[in-house]
Amino acid sequence: MFEERAPVKVMDAVQMVMAHSREGEEERVHLSEADGRYLAEDIKADHPIPPFDRSPLDGFAIQSQDSKNASSESPVKIEIVDTVGAGHTFTGKLKPGHGVRVMTGTIMPDDCDAVVMFELANDYQENGNSYIDIKRQFSPGDFVSKQGEETSEGETVIKKGTIVTAGVIAVLATFGYEYVPVIRKPRIGIFATGTELLDVNEPLEPGKIRNSNAYMIISQVRKAGGEPMYFGKLMDDFDLCYDAISSALEDVDALVTTGGVSVGDFDFLPAIYDKLGADVLFNKIAMRPGSVTTVAVFDGKPLFGLSGNPSACFVGFELYARPWVRRFMKSEKPYLQTIRGTLTADFPKPNPFTRFIRSRVKYEGNRLYAEPIGMDKSQVVTSLAYSDCLVAVPGGSRGYTSGDEVDILLLEAEGSAIPFKDPEKRKG
Amino acid sequence: MFEERAPVKVMDAVQMVMAHSREGEEERVHLSEADGRYLAEDIKADHPIPPFDRSPLDGFAIQSQDSKNASSESPVKIEIVDTVGAGHTFTGKLKPGHGVRVMTGTIMPDDCDAVVMFELANDYQENGNSYIDIKRQFSPGDFVSKQGEETSEGETVIKKGTIVTAGVIAVLATFGYEYVPVIRKPRIGIFATGTELLDVNEPLEPGKIRNSNAYMIISQVRKAGGEPMYFGKLMDDFDLCYDAISSALEDVDALVTTGGVSVGDFDFLPAIYDKLGADVLFNKIAMRPGSVTTVAVFDGKPLFGLSGNPSACFVGFELYARPWVRRFMKSEKPYLQTIRGTLTADFPKPNPFTRFIRSRVKYEGNRLYAEPIGMDKSQVVTSLAYSDCLVAVPGGSRGYTSGDEVDILLLEAEGSAIPFKDPEKRKG
Repeated sequence: MFEERAPVKVMDAVQMVMAHSREGEEERVHLSEADGRYLAEDIKADHPIPPFDRSPLDGFAIQSQDSKNASSESPVKIEIVDTVGAGHTFTGKLKPGHGVRVMTGTIMPDDCDAVVMFELANDYQENGNSYIDIKRQFSPGDFVSKQGEETSEGETVIKKGTIVTAGVIAVLATFGYEYVPVIRKPRIGIFATGTELLDVNEPLEPGKIRNSNAYMIISQVRKAGGEPMYFGKLMDDFDLCYDAISSALEDVDALVTTGGVSVGDFDFLPAIYDKLGADVLFNKIAMRPGSVTTVAVFDGKPLFGLSGNPSACFVGFELYARPWVRRFMKSEKPYLQTIRGTLTADFPKPNPFTRFIRSRVKYEGNRLYAEPIGMDKSQVVTSLAYSDCLVAVPGGSRGYTSGDEVDILLLEAEGSAIPFKDPEKRKG
Repeated sequence: MFEERAPVKVMDAVQMVMAHSREGEEERVHLSEADGRYLAEDIKADHPIPPFDRSPLDGFAIQSQDSKNASSESPVKIEIVDTVGAGHTFTGKLKPGHGVRVMTGTIMPDDCDAVVMFELANDYQENGNSYIDIKRQFSPGDFVSKQGEETSEGETVIKKGTIVTAGVIAVLATFGYEYVPVIRKPRIGIFATGTELLDVNEPLEPGKIRNSNAYMIISQVRKAGGEPMYFGKLMDDFDLCYDAISSALEDVDALVTTGGVSVGDFDFLPAIYDKLGADVLFNKIAMRPGSVTTVAVFDGKPLFGLSGNPSACFVGFELYARPWVRRFMKSEKPYLQTIRGTLTADFPKPNPFTRFIRSRVKYEGNRLYAEPIGMDKSQVVTSLAYSDCLVAVPGGSRGYTSGDEVDILLLEAEGSAIPFKDPEKRKG
C-alpha cells in the first residue's frame, strides 16, 4: 500500500521547473501602475537630454565675447535687459554688452553662450536699469548645459528586462512613456485542499483548522509579481477536486494547490495529475521542509502541488513557483538573492536532506548574519512571521553551530540572475 | 540679492525631521489587503496550536497498551476498524486490540494515544477485515502532536510593529484575523512646481521638459507605504502655488513638492512657508545631491521641499520623507538598511559635502559591492533607473577609489531601526 517515491535533488527540481518557463505577452500599462513590472522593450530617448542648451544654475546669460577684457581690476559692466524663468523663452535680440537674468533650466537666449552664476556676479541698479560687473573672462559654453550632452535622441536609455522602480519611472516620464511596455502578470490560480480547513472567519470545530495557506500564497504570488486568483478551498473528494482543478486550468497560467500531494488515502492530487494527463516532473524532493512538493505540467502550465504544512508550503513556493512567475514577467533575476553569512545560533538537527531553515537576517558591519527561528516548538507557528531569509544547508550533516558560514537566501531583496548555490556543493 | 543659507549636517536634518514624526490612527483591513502594513496590536492566539491532539503523519492510531508485548519476533495484531481523514472525527468506542487508520492532521480518536506511521506498519486484509502488525512497543503520546504543544491559547504570537508579510498573513489566518489591526497609510500630497514642466503625454516645446519627478515620487511614496495623492503640476506663480498648497494641506498628512526651493527669482516655496507660518526646520543641507532640500512643518504636517533635480529629488525623498512615512505606519525599521561594502570603481570627484552616490549593489560570496552609476555624463539620466543603492561618503575627501570600503544604503531591503551611519564619522 505504501508508495515509495524517488526524491530528486533540489537544484534538479529547480531546473526541471524552469525548463518549462515561458514569457508572457506584452501589454501597456499606465506609468503610475508600472511599479514592479519588467520592461518588455528597450526604452529609447525621444529627444536629447538636455533637450536644448540651458542654464544649469541661477545666474546671468551673457555673450562671452563681452568678457574678453574682464578682470578683477577692470570689471566689465553688462546691462541685464530681461529676466527669464525656466519654461519661458527669451525671444528678443541682444546688443553687445547686454545679458539676461536666467534661472536653473532656462533655455539659453539665442545670442548668449555663457552663464555667470549669481554668486560670481555683482549685480546692482543704476538709473532704473540693472547691471552686473564681470571680473573674469568667460569662454563660449562656460556654465552652459549643451543640448544632448547627457543623452542623444534615439539612444537606448534602459534595457528591456529591467524592473520598473521609481528611478525607471522618472526616465520613462522624461521620454514621454505615458503607457509602458511590460509583460502581463501571470494569472496564478490557488486552491487549498483539505476537508479539515475552515475559513478564516469560521469558528473552530473539533478536528478542523483554519485555512492559512491560501492567504499566505496570495501574498507570495503578489510579491512575486503575479496576479493571484483564489478559487477557494476544496474538500478531499476526488471528483470535486478534479472538476475544480481542470476547470480552473482554463483560466490561469499556472496553478498552486496546497495539500493533497502526500501518500495519504485522501491525497488526491497524484490521481488528478494522472487523470488530467499532466506530466509529473517530480513528486518528491530531497529537501526539508517540503519533501512532498510536486510539480506537474499540463498544456504548458505548471501545477505547483505544495505541501499542506505551512512552512513547507512557503518554502516550496519561494524555491519553485517564484522564479517561474518572475521569468514569465521577463525578470532576468528570478531567483532569491543568495549571500554567504554567519549563523548566529546552533542548529543541532541532523540533516539527511538539504534543509531550508527559516531565519532572520541581520546586517552588521560588512557581514550578514542569520538567526534561525522556530528552533523550539513554541516558535513553529511564529517562525514564518519573523522569517526574512532562508538558510540553506546541505544534507548529510550532523547539524550546524553558531559561527558557521552558510548560504542565506534573502526573501526581501529584488532577486538573482542565478539560483541559490547548490547546497549540496557546500559539503566540506 | 543673493541669500546665503547655513547648511545643516545630514544626520541633524534626519533627526530634525524625525522629531516631528507621529503615528497614525489604527484601522482594520482585510487579510488579503494587509501586505506591507505594520501591525497596530499584538496578535494573540485565539486557540492553542495544535488545537487538539492530532496525528502528525499518515498512519494508524492505536491504544499504546496493546503494544506492550510487541517485538519483531512476536508482533501484535491490531484490527483497523475505520479510516478517518483530516477534518473528520472518529466518534466510535474502540475495543482493546482495535485501532483506526488516520491521516496527517486527523484528530486523535478518544481511546487512542499513539500513532504508528505507514512505513512501520505491515497492513493486510483477512476475512474482509483490515489488520496491522506492530513489531515494537509504543508509549502513550508516541507520534502524537499534543494540543497546545506549539502555542498556548492567549499567547502573543506576533508583536505589534511587525511588518505584514506572507508569513505573518499565515499566522493571522490561523488565529482568525479576517480583519487585521494596522495603522492607516499616511496620505502624502504631491506637487511638481515649475513653469517649464510638460505632462508626460505632451509634445516637447522649446524651453520645456517633461515632468518626471511627480511620477517618481508617486512610486517612492507607494514603496515607502504611503498613499500618494498627486495634485498636479504648478506654474511658477506665487498666488497660484500658495492657494494650491494651503488648500491641499487640509487633505494630507504630509506634502511633497519638487522644485522651487532654491534661490532663483521664481523659487516661491520659501515665501510660501513664510506666509503659511510654517516652521522651516532647515533650507540647506551639507550634502550632494540635494543641498537645497528644505523641510518645514505646518500644523504638525511636514512639508518636504525637494529639489527639482531628479537625482536630488530622489535622494531627498529616501533620506528624509521615507522614514517619516514608515514611522507614521508604526515601522520600527523606518530607515534604509545600511551595510559596509566595497566600491568597484573610482569615484574621483572631490567631495566638499557628504555625498550620496547612486549605485548598483552586487552580492558576491560573503561581501557586498557597489558600482557607482552615472559617473560620466551620458549616464546621468539612466543612473536613477539602474540604482538600487546609495553609497554614502563623507565630505572633505579627494574622492574614492575602487576597493575602498564604503557605506551602502540598500533601497530594496525592508529597512533599518537606526539611520544610516553618519558618513562624517567615517572620516579617517
